[in-house]
Amino acid sequence: MTAGGASDPAAATEGRPAARGLFVTFEGGDGVGKTTQAALLDEWLTDAGRTVVRTREPGGTEVGLLIRDIVLHHRGEIAPRAEALLYAADRAHHVETLVRPALARGDVVIQDRYIDSSVAYQGAGRVLGREEVRDLSLWATGGLLPDVTVLLDLDPAAARLRLDADDKPFDRLEAEKEHFHARVREEFLTLAAAEPERFLVLDAARPSHELAADVRARIAGLLA
Amino acid sequence: MTAGGASDPAAATEGRPAARGLFVTFEGGDGVGKTTQAALLDEWLTDAGRTVVRTREPGGTEVGLLIRDIVLHHRGEIAPRAEALLYAADRAHHVETLVRPALARGDVVIQDRYIDSSVAYQGAGRVLGREEVRDLSLWATGGLLPDVTVLLDLDPAAARLRLDADDKPFDRLEAEKEHFHARVREEFLTLAAAEPERFLVLDAARPSHELAADVRARIAGLLA
Repeated sequence: MTAGGASDPAAATEGRPAARGLFVTFEGGDGVGKTTQAALLDEWLTDAGRTVVRTREPGGTEVGLLIRDIVLHHRGEIAPRAEALLYAADRAHHVETLVRPALARGDVVIQDRYIDSSVAYQGAGRVLGREEVRDLSLWATGGLLPDVTVLLDLDPAAARLRLDADDKPFDRLEAEKEHFHARVREEFLTLAAAEPERFLVLDAARPSHELAADVRARIAGLLA
Repeated sequence: MTAGGASDPAAATEGRPAARGLFVTFEGGDGVGKTTQAALLDEWLTDAGRTVVRTREPGGTEVGLLIRDIVLHHRGEIAPRAEALLYAADRAHHVETLVRPALARGDVVIQDRYIDSSVAYQGAGRVLGREEVRDLSLWATGGLLPDVTVLLDLDPAAARLRLDADDKPFDRLEAEKEHFHARVREEFLTLAAAEPERFLVLDAARPSHELAADVRARIAGLLA
């Protein structure tokens, strides 16, 4: 149940060719603009000739979609440890069958939500501890951490306004109370403060094109 | 990710009334007679005035049935860690919502498969280690171990003959090769040897009524 710390030296030496892949994750609450920023980064990288794999958790694989359906849409209560384990199962399958092979090919993987979401939502918002949830995810993934994690930070009330404008029905997590989202936001910021070399924290209230430029600047430094 | 060792003193003192519950599991490969022996024990205990909860893993709860469906009937490959995490998720939900409440009421829980199946099938038969799989299960359950585990030991070839006689279609696990089942059997025996105070190992080739008598004798000692 132990897992490697930093971004997986084993995979770097074993699986990856000279054109090393890059693993970028977007984190933050619902409605902060993760999908928009992921799309803009994708476009920029593709124009620059890189092969990009866009994916997300939960539900980035066929098995993951089945798991996602249980976690998000089951009508009864799910025991907290069971929920954490389901997310970890989705992640284990996703990393093994999609993320690691893409990185080994030298692709850029842009992913919506990863380990930090699990820690922020499950660890802070629920009854389980941060360390337990993080250890579980690290075991699930064989210790794979992103090269860069972009945290789009936004006041939950502002994010909620954006979601309301979408006029989609809320799923189970979205329906949780406002103060839950406030705790999650704080947890994300704490995680970012603990790993400043991995995180790029952006104020998601700023204009989309400005945020995209900041993201590109960070990624460009890594691709150079 | 650490979990308690022996059979959960916390639950014993916190949740259980004077008429302490009893947690009995049946283990062994497919076709060894677990269902038959569980039914006979259930009948005997019920006749003796005890409340019995019969259950199984995977799939003892509504959430568990959804998970069972993914694990047993998904047509593509499932990453080994993902499979172990799905079994653990089923277990976490099952223990939290069904087993612990029953034990707290003073019931006898008779369960088909538990932690030892995970270790024997996943740990020995697949690519993951025994300790990892055991630690995962103990985390999932908050360290709950059975009071008694009955291991019905049978040569895999004999068990296969019984299954063939049933004329049911094989699921994914049942279709794995014969030598896999031989490794699983050895693994079960190793687990039993390591915890002789918890395990009752029976030769499942013996007549059903003789086996049932041995099980009753062991349980009677614990209920006295």
